[in-house]
Amino acid sequence: MKVSAGDSRDMAAEGEAVSNKQVIFKNYVTGFPKESDMYLTTSSINLQVPEGSDAVLVKNLFLSCDPYMRGRMKNFPSDDPQFSPFHPGSPVFGLGVAKVVDSGHPKFKKGDLVWGPTKWEEYTLVSSPDHLFKIHHTDIPLSYYTGLLGMPGITAYFGLNDICTPKKGERVYVSAASGAVGQLVGQFAKLMGCYVVGSAGSKEKVDLLKDKFGFDEAFNYKEEHDWDATLKRYFPEGIDIYFENVGGKMLDAVLLNMRVHGRIAACGMISQYNLQQPEGVHNLMTIVYKRILIKGFVSFDYFGQYSKILDYVLPYIREGKISYVEDIADGIESAPAALVGLFSGRNVGKQVVAVAHD
Amino acid sequence: MKVSAGDSRDMAAEGEAVSNKQVIFKNYVTGFPKESDMYLTTSSINLQVPEGSDAVLVKNLFLSCDPYMRGRMKNFPSDDPQFSPFHPGSPVFGLGVAKVVDSGHPKFKKGDLVWGPTKWEEYTLVSSPDHLFKIHHTDIPLSYYTGLLGMPGITAYFGLNDICTPKKGERVYVSAASGAVGQLVGQFAKLMGCYVVGSAGSKEKVDLLKDKFGFDEAFNYKEEHDWDATLKRYFPEGIDIYFENVGGKMLDAVLLNMRVHGRIAACGMISQYNLQQPEGVHNLMTIVYKRILIKGFVSFDYFGQYSKILDYVLPYIREGKISYVEDIADGIESAPAALVGLFSGRNVGKQVVAVAHD
Repeated sequence: MKVSAGDSRDMAAEGEAVSNKQVIFKNYVTGFPKESDMYLTTSSINLQVPEGSDAVLVKNLFLSCDPYMRGRMKNFPSDDPQFSPFHPGSPVFGLGVAKVVDSGHPKFKKGDLVWGPTKWEEYTLVSSPDHLFKIHHTDIPLSYYTGLLGMPGITAYFGLNDICTPKKGERVYVSAASGAVGQLVGQFAKLMGCYVVGSAGSKEKVDLLKDKFGFDEAFNYKEEHDWDATLKRYFPEGIDIYFENVGGKMLDAVLLNMRVHGRIAACGMISQYNLQQPEGVHNLMTIVYKRILIKGFVSFDYFGQYSKILDYVLPYIREGKISYVEDIADGIESAPAALVGLFSGRNVGKQVVAVAHD
Repeated sequence: MKVSAGDSRDMAAEGEAVSNKQVIFKNYVTGFPKESDMYLTTSSINLQVPEGSDAVLVKNLFLSCDPYMRGRMKNFPSDDPQFSPFHPGSPVFGLGVAKVVDSGHPKFKKGDLVWGPTKWEEYTLVSSPDHLFKIHHTDIPLSYYTGLLGMPGITAYFGLNDICTPKKGERVYVSAASGAVGQLVGQFAKLMGCYVVGSAGSKEKVDLLKDKFGFDEAFNYKEEHDWDATLKRYFPEGIDIYFENVGGKMLDAVLLNMRVHGRIAACGMISQYNLQQPEGVHNLMTIVYKRILIKGFVSFDYFGQYSKILDYVLPYIREGKISYVEDIADGIESAPAALVGLFSGRNVGKQVVAVAHD
């Protein structure tokens, strides 16, 4: 055991080699991902960062299951360090909440709670800890740092404010509205005085939208067979803002119902991820004569402004004015099913995997 | 003959009833428009505005043929006064250059040259003359007020500057690049220090792009069978700015070649106008991970800022640093063929119809 220069490390624990359950990505996926595209294995890990390294060794508490991860299950040339494919034979990676076990980085010390990029395993050596955020507010459930106070919160807040610039009284439509991002977009838009309609894929989710999140209206898209007509029913005067999580046929129906100068923020298109050939969107000509803005965005670009969302959201959480619904799967063994379930809409609310409780 | 209150009207001419050749829109069109969707007729018109009216009576000199006019050939409910369908049995309407014959409006007097909304006939009573611009610079060919100094100029200038915000060295792709708008977008982008590639549908047009307009590269899209590969050849590092005039499959190929944070200004999608069902665009998911902006716009929204383009463009014209190529059809009889020819790419440069020379 090597001992690096003076900090508050607990030498009793950190030198230990412990067993480390991992979720390994098997191989690139076409079509819907299956649980069998991942497998569990147990390796061992030394709970200490290598000498001279500025890495951080963390114990993972919560892992985040996010639709964008489907994109990492196929091979592609990536020049974007923030969005590269999984490596077959290596652990799945993503975002999570973790506790620092050992640190070679001056910003972190043992016992710190953090959220950010980690791997799907019990313990992870984070080699680029600069991308980790330290968690300062622990009166909020820690799992929320995979959702409301993590990447989905950033996505909802900046997508809505920066791209859609909502004004009081504007009409907002949110698809995948009970999901990690959608439930927040709807609530933020309501707090801004908008009229908000959401769609989701079950009665339970639709009830959540109306009863828990305060959406003005909500519908089950699986029970509607002509989405153009459905949207005309809920938006007789058209849609000012569409928060796009779905893509494909839903986007086509929305384009027919946008108002002049409407704005569409696109952070994902979950309906398309598992198709060999994405659906064609036919109604793009409407963007010309309706002067519509469509802006794709990636939440990572806003991570530098993370404090803004804390300032905005923490008071609302503490006043009980924002709710957040999570679907927490217990144990790292449940992680593959939890991730795969996103694409059939099995989850109700933000899908999280609880790996350890402290 | 009624005489209205004191101005400089020439009573000898203005009371006359003269014959007035008109191009009448026959009925709503599906598929490609044909010359026979319009017909010529001769009515008569009194060269005087009705007493007490603030209308203006103009003699049309040049009529503008623009692709967006295809959209007016189908019936649709319009709540937008700037974009309503043609009326079967009434003259085609659009933009043009004209000379004031009689005026009830304080802003205009007999002999003024104007450009703006007019009808496809020799003489037009313009009932809303507030939408007419007075022409002050007559050292420039008058027909240019249907192009470089008219709506297409506004489209190119504001689409490029307001939406695409080009920076020196950025890579710009222009489709329909020899057309009324495209030739300007390319030249403006070159003046801003961009690398500019255009596509057009004949060798003659491609030569124009390179030899006359100074594009860095140009290609004949009809001779390329894999536009994705073509664009990769001309933009090995990707496209920062796409000025969208075409839509459909070309947009799909462009989306595969956009750079991160790319911008697409969409003012029209000429490849789609004559299809019963627009082509599907499949690669929209790229807008998310590449953070692409797509913004539809309509030049009318920028008409209030017209003076900006005059300030920008007039010096360049006078210094010979901007060229403009027009395809001028002679006589109002040639107007239906000229308009229809836009959709087969028959025109080389901006399509204009010369109705009268003074």
